[in-house]
Amino acid sequence: MKGNVLVGQSGGPTAVINSSLAGVFKTAKEHGANKIYGMLYGIQGLLEEKYVDLGNLIHSDIEIELLKRTPSSYLGSCRYKLPDINKEPETYKKLFSILNKLEIEYFFYIGGNDSMDTIRKLTDYGESISSSIRFIGVPKTIDNDLEVTDHTPGFGSAAKYIATTTKEIIRDSLAYDQKNLTVIEIMGRNAGWLTGASVLSKCQDCEGPDMIILPEVTFDLGDFISKVEYFQKVRKSVVIAVSEGIRLRDGRYVCELAGQETFTDDFGHSLLSGSAKYLANRITLELGCKTRAIELSTLQRCATHMASLVDITEAFQVGGAAVNAAFRGETGKMVILKRLSNNPYQCTTDLYDIHKIANLEKKVPDSWIDPNGTYVTQEFTEYVKPLIQEELTPIMINGLPRHLIKK
Amino acid sequence: MKGNVLVGQSGGPTAVINSSLAGVFKTAKEHGANKIYGMLYGIQGLLEEKYVDLGNLIHSDIEIELLKRTPSSYLGSCRYKLPDINKEPETYKKLFSILNKLEIEYFFYIGGNDSMDTIRKLTDYGESISSSIRFIGVPKTIDNDLEVTDHTPGFGSAAKYIATTTKEIIRDSLAYDQKNLTVIEIMGRNAGWLTGASVLSKCQDCEGPDMIILPEVTFDLGDFISKVEYFQKVRKSVVIAVSEGIRLRDGRYVCELAGQETFTDDFGHSLLSGSAKYLANRITLELGCKTRAIELSTLQRCATHMASLVDITEAFQVGGAAVNAAFRGETGKMVILKRLSNNPYQCTTDLYDIHKIANLEKKVPDSWIDPNGTYVTQEFTEYVKPLIQEELTPIMINGLPRHLIKK
Repeated sequence: MKGNVLVGQSGGPTAVINSSLAGVFKTAKEHGANKIYGMLYGIQGLLEEKYVDLGNLIHSDIEIELLKRTPSSYLGSCRYKLPDINKEPETYKKLFSILNKLEIEYFFYIGGNDSMDTIRKLTDYGESISSSIRFIGVPKTIDNDLEVTDHTPGFGSAAKYIATTTKEIIRDSLAYDQKNLTVIEIMGRNAGWLTGASVLSKCQDCEGPDMIILPEVTFDLGDFISKVEYFQKVRKSVVIAVSEGIRLRDGRYVCELAGQETFTDDFGHSLLSGSAKYLANRITLELGCKTRAIELSTLQRCATHMASLVDITEAFQVGGAAVNAAFRGETGKMVILKRLSNNPYQCTTDLYDIHKIANLEKKVPDSWIDPNGTYVTQEFTEYVKPLIQEELTPIMINGLPRHLIKK
Repeated sequence: MKGNVLVGQSGGPTAVINSSLAGVFKTAKEHGANKIYGMLYGIQGLLEEKYVDLGNLIHSDIEIELLKRTPSSYLGSCRYKLPDINKEPETYKKLFSILNKLEIEYFFYIGGNDSMDTIRKLTDYGESISSSIRFIGVPKTIDNDLEVTDHTPGFGSAAKYIATTTKEIIRDSLAYDQKNLTVIEIMGRNAGWLTGASVLSKCQDCEGPDMIILPEVTFDLGDFISKVEYFQKVRKSVVIAVSEGIRLRDGRYVCELAGQETFTDDFGHSLLSGSAKYLANRITLELGCKTRAIELSTLQRCATHMASLVDITEAFQVGGAAVNAAFRGETGKMVILKRLSNNPYQCTTDLYDIHKIANLEKKVPDSWIDPNGTYVTQEFTEYVKPLIQEELTPIMINGLPRHLIKK
């Protein structure tokens, strides 16, 4: 009899993280896995022995289809960093005793940078005790800041949502015959992939944003105000996409200028918001025009109703590829996406040593940022464009998208 | 030869205001109208002789379909209140000289309360000079605060967007195994129709918001905090929908408590935002739990990608009915929607004397608000539900909804 499977979700949810779960579940079933367990609230929940038997929750193909269309983490998530193996071996002993009790042979963790750190540590500890459990990481993050993989599942749908709403906002900003400025605040603490994706709104029926300001570029307030002043001379409505994480030369976040406290999460990441509001207020004071700030906020990671079919499909594929790899005997690896060509877009999966990935952060390369620092290049556009293509129609019931919930 | 038609859009855009424009254009063409002009930026633009010949801009059925799917006001909008006829007759003389120069016989204005005031004044002035021009108002407003009509086009799509995103946000709020509070801020200065629409997220796969706080109910901060405290005892994640316009007993807006200035637009309406952020911060201070504030913001009125088919269709119908009425000889009327039945939902158009409508504001009736003041009743749900049904697929090009722009 084949051994049991355990799968968990970790870090911030994405619009398609459940499609990866569906990919793990469906492929593991096809491999004849015995039990397929899901940890509730990631590794943190597992430490409290919180888990479910997914076979009792997902009964049919239609439920798998619903799962693919359900935002947030179906199993629940955590932001929990495993301690150093040498400092707190008890945590690992406890975890492995739970894994052994559940007769787990295959362990999958769907997450971003911090979750790959978990896979790395579990692999290393497992090796040190000659465990036969196989550990495979499944990439996800809207931020697209994982190294080695061409891109991460979750990014394409967030990018599609951002491009769509930026288009709608730009259209809205043209309604009145009055000078106005809109600042759209987009997620991305250190990496500007999502903010850059606003460039996709630029197409035959839309001029796109006037400036795109990434966290990779040091922000200069004086320069910003001069550029807004210039744009306001040549057009009525100015729309600017800014990252939540833009910083001044002295390292302070722009949102700190508003006098707002910044909070940090359990990984020590700052929780940022308010850059757009600060900049909009500042422009009203300096230039006197009508301004508004729009934070795209949580919707960037949960607007599954606007998910990209390419993204949903790839999220499913990386889940399936992880299972295939583990059943082939692989361990200590993360599934990555490899782009084969752009025209037509073709992409496949591969594996990469988890030790060479964890905790690295991929930023937008300098060469993809316009020399003046307030736009992205054509290469950036060509890179992101294929990832937002096509749609997976939500299953609409009574006018609203239906989701799968645990019952 | 039939006379010319003039159509304008006024006030805040909606996701479907262009569907009404499409209804006017197509129906006027079918009636054999000679020229169909569109005023640019409403009556304010017309006073500056800004207009276009729509026949030069819309050439085909596919362009009409695109127009129905285009957010914001295709013609541009204004927030301009016509002066008192007796005080500033010159404005009216100027307007009517422009109308006569363009040989206008049929005048349509798509808008809310303030725009119906424009139709009323033009009708009265026209009568006083024995003009033969016919004036008909076409209702629109996401706020649903127009009297006499069962509901207003634009409301259903905003309600669908609000219900969809509330569902997605509630799902997202369940991701972590941690007490948390989300406050969603929804548009609606004085009327709680939009905030109430968040109730539709309550269905088989979603519990809906825990509280729904309308501007019709005086807001009590102490009571609010106690209720949050109660909910936090019984569930992990609490989600609350609040109107931007909630006020304290002393008349101050809650958003003013944050020390933010409130601005006013040209109609003297306050521009409000910050209630959710204030309440979330307050709860963090009082109860110490993790909170977040999400402003649905401008997207409520421009997310045409999530428009309701019922709404788009009715928006088109009121435009068409206005044209039919004018060509029948009617003037000084607004088209209204009359609901014939809920099960199945059936609705038709009718006409109503503009003098009995303008400047009245329809609020959520007391009997549709839960006695404890923090939810809406089943009657409210039954009223809104039919208006968000079905979808009109956007025309997607390169992964994004395509819009019609003036070329």
